[in-house]
Formats: sequence, C-alpha cells, structure tokens
Amino acid sequence: MKNKKTSIYKAKAISGYPEWLPEYRVIELQWFDAIRSVFESYGYSSIETPSVEELDALMAKGASDKEIYTLARLQADEESKKDKSDARLALHFDLTVPLARYVSQHFNNLIFPFKRYQMQRVWRGERPQKGRFREFYQCDIDVINIDNLPLHFDAEMPRVMHEIYQKLNLPEKIQIRISNRKVLVGYLLGLGIAEDMIADVTRILDKIEKIGSDNVVKQLTDDLGLDTKLAEQSLALSKIRGGKAKELINAVKALGVNNDLLEQGLTELFFVLDNLSDLPDGDVIGDLSIVRGLDYYTGTILEAYIVSDTDFGAVGSGGRYEDLTGSFINKKMPGIGISIGLTRLFSWMVDGGHLEPQRFSSTDILVVQSSSESYEVSMQTANILRNRGFNVELFHSAVKIKKQLSYAEKKGIPYVWFPPFEGVDVHEVKDMKSRVQLVADPENYIF
Amino acid sequence: MKNKKTSIYKAKAISGYPEWLPEYRVIELQWFDAIRSVFESYGYSSIETPSVEELDALMAKGASDKEIYTLARLQADEESKKDKSDARLALHFDLTVPLARYVSQHFNNLIFPFKRYQMQRVWRGERPQKGRFREFYQCDIDVINIDNLPLHFDAEMPRVMHEIYQKLNLPEKIQIRISNRKVLVGYLLGLGIAEDMIADVTRILDKIEKIGSDNVVKQLTDDLGLDTKLAEQSLALSKIRGGKAKELINAVKALGVNNDLLEQGLTELFFVLDNLSDLPDGDVIGDLSIVRGLDYYTGTILEAYIVSDTDFGAVGSGGRYEDLTGSFINKKMPGIGISIGLTRLFSWMVDGGHLEPQRFSSTDILVVQSSSESYEVSMQTANILRNRGFNVELFHSAVKIKKQLSYAEKKGIPYVWFPPFEGVDVHEVKDMKSRVQLVADPENYIF
Repeated sequence: MKNKKTSIYKAKAISGYPEWLPEYRVIELQWFDAIRSVFESYGYSSIETPSVEELDALMAKGASDKEIYTLARLQADEESKKDKSDARLALHFDLTVPLARYVSQHFNNLIFPFKRYQMQRVWRGERPQKGRFREFYQCDIDVINIDNLPLHFDAEMPRVMHEIYQKLNLPEKIQIRISNRKVLVGYLLGLGIAEDMIADVTRILDKIEKIGSDNVVKQLTDDLGLDTKLAEQSLALSKIRGGKAKELINAVKALGVNNDLLEQGLTELFFVLDNLSDLPDGDVIGDLSIVRGLDYYTGTILEAYIVSDTDFGAVGSGGRYEDLTGSFINKKMPGIGISIGLTRLFSWMVDGGHLEPQRFSSTDILVVQSSSESYEVSMQTANILRNRGFNVELFHSAVKIKKQLSYAEKKGIPYVWFPPFEGVDVHEVKDMKSRVQLVADPENYIF
Repeated sequence: MKNKKTSIYKAKAISGYPEWLPEYRVIELQWFDAIRSVFESYGYSSIETPSVEELDALMAKGASDKEIYTLARLQADEESKKDKSDARLALHFDLTVPLARYVSQHFNNLIFPFKRYQMQRVWRGERPQKGRFREFYQCDIDVINIDNLPLHFDAEMPRVMHEIYQKLNLPEKIQIRISNRKVLVGYLLGLGIAEDMIADVTRILDKIEKIGSDNVVKQLTDDLGLDTKLAEQSLALSKIRGGKAKELINAVKALGVNNDLLEQGLTELFFVLDNLSDLPDGDVIGDLSIVRGLDYYTGTILEAYIVSDTDFGAVGSGGRYEDLTGSFINKKMPGIGISIGLTRLFSWMVDGGHLEPQRFSSTDILVVQSSSESYEVSMQTANILRNRGFNVELFHSAVKIKKQLSYAEKKGIPYVWFPPFEGVDVHEVKDMKSRVQLVADPENYIF
C-alpha cells in the first residue's frame, strides 16, 4: 500500500477561508443563535438568497470596484460555452445587492415596510493576503419601504446592534458611533462649498484617521483648491463627538453655519441619540467624524468599534439610503440597514485568545456500555434521556469503563450515566466536575 | 427620471438556485432547527468547512465525474494570473470530500471516533435544466474512527434519520430501506462471479428500477457474458425486502449460496434491523435491491424514499465506507454517514402544495403607536415584552389604528398590544384570531 503514497494530496488550509475546530464552532453557533434571536425579537424575518447573482445584476448596482469571483463550469463542453442562455454567474460580495434584487423580483409578494435579516457568507475575490478574508459571514438587517421610511428605524438599528454585542459576552466594550450625512453635507454646503465638490471633499475628510488633520487640510487645498480657512472649517465638525444629545447638537450650532439640510440632519440625529439615551454611558455616542465612504448613504450613518482596539477597524456598520432598488425597478425605495461583521469579530476573539472553549461538543450526557449484553438497556436509557430533551451519546462499544470516562473527559461531557449491569440493578449518574456519583432515575433525575 | 429606465436590470430568478419567500423561509428555518436538534441530541458536533476546496483536493477524491464550479477573480490582473501560489479553487460538490480534508488536516486536534454534523450548501456546475438544482443544502452526519468502527453506528444512523423525518411533520410517510454491500457482493461471489466483475455486475443491477429485470438480465448476458441462469440468479436477491429481520435473513439463506462475506453481511444486517425493530412497522425495512452506485460503500447502505412518490428518488441516503481519508493521509479511517437532501425534500413539499405558510414572520406581538406623543410608552412596552422573550414589533409610525391592525393581519402576527393613550390609562391586548380584546399587564400577561 505504501506505493500509493505519491498520490496523496496534502490537506491544508486555504488562505482567507477561515475554518474552526469543533470547540470553537460550538461558540460560533451560539453567536449565530444569539444574533438571530435578537433580530427576530425586533420582528425581522429571515430570508436567504442564493450564493450567486448574475454578474450583470451585481454590476448594475455599481460594483465595479469590488473584487468579484465569477464561476465557470469545469466540465463545460464547447456546445454549452456557446449557449448564451446561461448567464455569467458570480458569488455575491455583500448582502445588499442580493436584497435589492430580491425585493425587486418579489415586490408583489412582500409586505412593506419589509423588515428582513440575512446571515450568510459573502465572498471577495481578492489576491491571497495575510489577515484578509476571502469568504466571511455577514449578519444584516435592513428595512425597506416604498417612497418613505419613518425615522423610528434609525433609532431601532443601533439599539438592535447594541443588544447583539451585549448578548455575545465580549471581553471588551464595543462602542457604536452615530452621525448623519445630512449634517455633514449641510454643514459643508453652508460653508459655501459647491454641491458638485461635496463628494470629493467628504472622500478626503474620510481619511482623517489614516493620514491626520494636517494632511487632510493639505489635500483639500492642494487637490481641490479650497482656501486654507475653508479647508480648516471643513474639519471642525470632525472634532465633535460624545456627550449628551443636546450638547452635541449645541456644539454644531456653535460653529455658526446656517443651512436647511444641516438643520434637518441635526433634528434627525437628536431624535436618534435621544431615543438611545437609556443605554449605558458611552455605549452609543454621536460622532461627527464619521463619514462612511459609500456614496449611497444619505441620512443616519453608524459604525461600531472595539474600544480597546479601534485600529482593528469597524466590526459593524450601517446607514440610511434613499433608494435601494433604483437599478432594478422604477420605484423609490428608501431603507436603512446594519451589517455585523461576524467572522471579523469572531476571528479577532480567536486570534486574541479571548475565547476559552469548554466543550468539544454540545453533548450533555454520555451513557456507558458495561458489556455487550447491556447494550439494549444502555440504548433504552439513552433514548429516555434524549426524549427528555438532553443531548446524549451512547458509548459505542463495551470497552473498559475507564476508557469510556476518559472519552467523556476529553470531550468535556458534563455527566456520565451508568445503566444497571451485572450485580448492580440501579442507574447511577456521575457529575464529571464534582466527581460525585449518585443513584438516579433516568425518567426524572434533575441535572 | 424616466430616461433612466434603459439602465434597469430586470431582476429574475436563476435556474437551479432556489430562493423562498419569507413565509416559506420561516418553515425552512424550522426544518434546519429540527434537524440540528436531532443531530445534537445524538452527540454529533457541528463543523463548517469553507465553500471552496482546492481543485486538486476535490480531484484527489476521484471527483472526475462530478460537475464542478471553479472560481476566477474578475479583477485578476496579468501579474496575479502568473502567481502560481494561488491554487485553483472550486466550490465543493458534496460534504464528504471536505470532511476527509478536514479530518486529515486537523487530525491531531480531533477526538475519535469523530462524530460531526454539517449542514451546508453544495454546488453542481451543471447546465441549467428544469428541476435540477445547481445549489442546494445537504444535512450530513458522519462518524469517523481510526482503524475500525463499531457496528453500533450502523444502527444509529437510520435511527437518527427516522427521527428527523418524524420531526419535520411531513404529510407523507418516508421509508428507510437498508441493505449491506457485503450481502450483495458475498452473494455474487458465492454464485461464482469473478471478483473483478463485481463492480460491473452491481452497476447493472443498480438499474433495475429504471430499466426493469428483463433488461438487466439482457445486459448481464450481452455486455458481461454471464450465462442466463447466472444472470437470473444475480437478480434473486433484489426481490427480497421487508418483513422481520429474521425472515429477511432466512429468505437470503434459502437461496442456498455459501460465502463468508455473505454470512458476515447477514450478521451485520440482522444487528441493524433488529436494533431498529422498535420503530413503527414499515418505517425502516431491509431491502436487498439497494445497490448504491458509489464504489466506496463497503457495508451498511441505506436510502430513504417518499412512499407515495418513490419515482421522485431518494430524499436521504448513506452508508459505511472502509477508508475516508485515503487520498489525504496514510491512515485507515473507516466511517459511516448519512445525508439528508433538505432542499430536494423541501422543494418537493413546496411544489406539491404540502406546506401552508401561516405567518410572514416570527413576530408574536405588534405594539401599536397611538400618537407621536405615545411613542415612548409604546417603545417601553415593546422592550418589556421583548425582555420576556417574545418577538415584538413596534409599529413604526402613528398612523390610524386600523392601518396598524391591517399590517398585523397581513403579516399573521397573532397579538396586537395597545399601550395607554389619551383617555385610556390601561394596557390592552387583542387576540387577532378570536378578536377578543382584554385589559392586560405587559409585565405578566400570559398569552
């Protein structure tokens, strides 16, 4: 058989495609369950879209800058290559484009406002690079409506996000930072910056964290031709953050800029922050330095950071947009959504040693097999316990009890059950932590 | 704006990629939860592998006949195309090859016997074809051990499968049919068929359902040169099915063929069927016509069918194999596994009109907003109910109550909650089914 060795393919990880051992996967599953339960507790419905979309659909939403994986059939024959009916397929790079396509396609069968959650993998066809994921989970909620969408949801989104981070039992505080694009844009317009320059100015303002204020002023003057005073004024907003909602609004007003859009943005921002004022201090703050690069955000914008490690980047984000489905149907459909970067945050926990796996499985009880004659009573006992709702493994062979106990130990199974066997006509259960072993009845023993 | 119309991409379904409306997705999620809970109740641990494997890894397990999707980076530049370090990636076509790779790669970090479950999408890069899925869910459990694996698991697998079909509340009976490759192969060897012809003979025997007994005999004689009597004897086994375990074994013995492998197979099959004899009559039967085309099965084999629609094909299957990881590491690792074709079965239910969606979401309670002044009390009420574990939607604006009730109606939300508002200083709750409205306390009302 040894000569077969040459045909052996060495199994190895693929860069950018995370995979966990069972003891970590148990925790990842708990995370999924926790996130799902919060989403559902606010009335969001699950949808799941295919992993692929037609490439044209992805491109219609302006994905030209995204790293996309396209699919090809390995066994495609010449004939089918000519078959134009098979559109070019590509893996989705986020869950927003699929949502836009889904809402457009199923428009007549949905109830609006449409509140959906979606927890799926997305793919980025990037070159392999250390620390960069090419496949990862996003957990999104969005609410989409026809023509207009109440401000209520702008406050609900950060609250949902906050509740999720609470539920994940993280060792570090996560802070949700909120701003409003109308405040930023209105402020810049009020300063006298021309409307057609706003996109360029905000693109540069978004770099403050990376390149620093001085370089931002330099780029605003050198690249865009703003005079120095105007450039410096543009930056003023980005220094306003934290405090009570009222104080934050007053700090903006103190800058002395008058603009209708700015006023509207401040009213919206106040509503949101005020609504969230019952949450612990510092968990959710107003932060006017937030820009969110994406052009399509038009109102509330938010980002979540690990407070002790902001350099790691956002572990959640979201915002309001004026029109989700513009490229698919002729309807104005505003929405607001958040996305939680589950894989990013989870891998940060794993890499930082913040997770302490306790159990290799979710098995509660191991039922031992004393001898091959006692197989049936062991099996029945396992069934009784299982019917009571416990996760139960029946040990698979009648080896020495010591070996069976050691299996339970290794897997972190908290209880071992001993059905009656020769000489002993009662059931017993052993608590693996306290080492206490007691007579017990499988029908009603309380663990 | 109308002139933008030309740029609109018409959103449409992609052939072979199923997608459900929210009211069906709720049920699909219940299925996933039910399957997962059964898997866990038998002590199987979740793992999840990436959607892709290196193409070489997929091919190492002899996937040459499988329809595979390979990935390509849309934005790959010339430089990276030359970069050989980026191995060719492909979407997995089942969950068995990924398991083999996973076990080999993480061998030193796993506890054996390794019992894992995996519920993931798989892809088949087929030409679009009506009724053929190109992306679908499989729900698998396998147990893998080093060197040998107790027969206990051969009996556990069909039991797990049976319990799952029970939990899914199917309108039609599912029957699990069990055989053993050793019985089939031993019987053919005992008839005097040469070992090197067994694969060809079983491949033809596997076609009985499709082409009928006469054509099978014809192919065995014409194509393989068996004499007619031998060809007919080969078929005798396939007529034996059902009855008690003992009867089934006796029926095989009555054929008068002696062979050690056959004996061993009968002993194994008896153990499995006898172990499952507590299940309702006809839910699990011995059926010696089962062949399972896949070469790697070596012992117990099983298939599950919708009794009223066997033509639909198997909705679950599985079996025992001698060596899972042969192409990856130099260890003998036998295993047994089952796979439930969730998407196949679910779409059969949808297409057949067997599902009656009741609710568009899992929201339990809609809290109304009587006026914009009562927003805060509505929000607090929603939070109280949510903290009690209910899924609660707060209606998003203070429109007419009639409109809010109609929203609850359309979404199938069972209860509507009225917090105090002008003139009314008590909470009330309305049962949408009975239409009864009562005074209630959000802190402790029992729904």
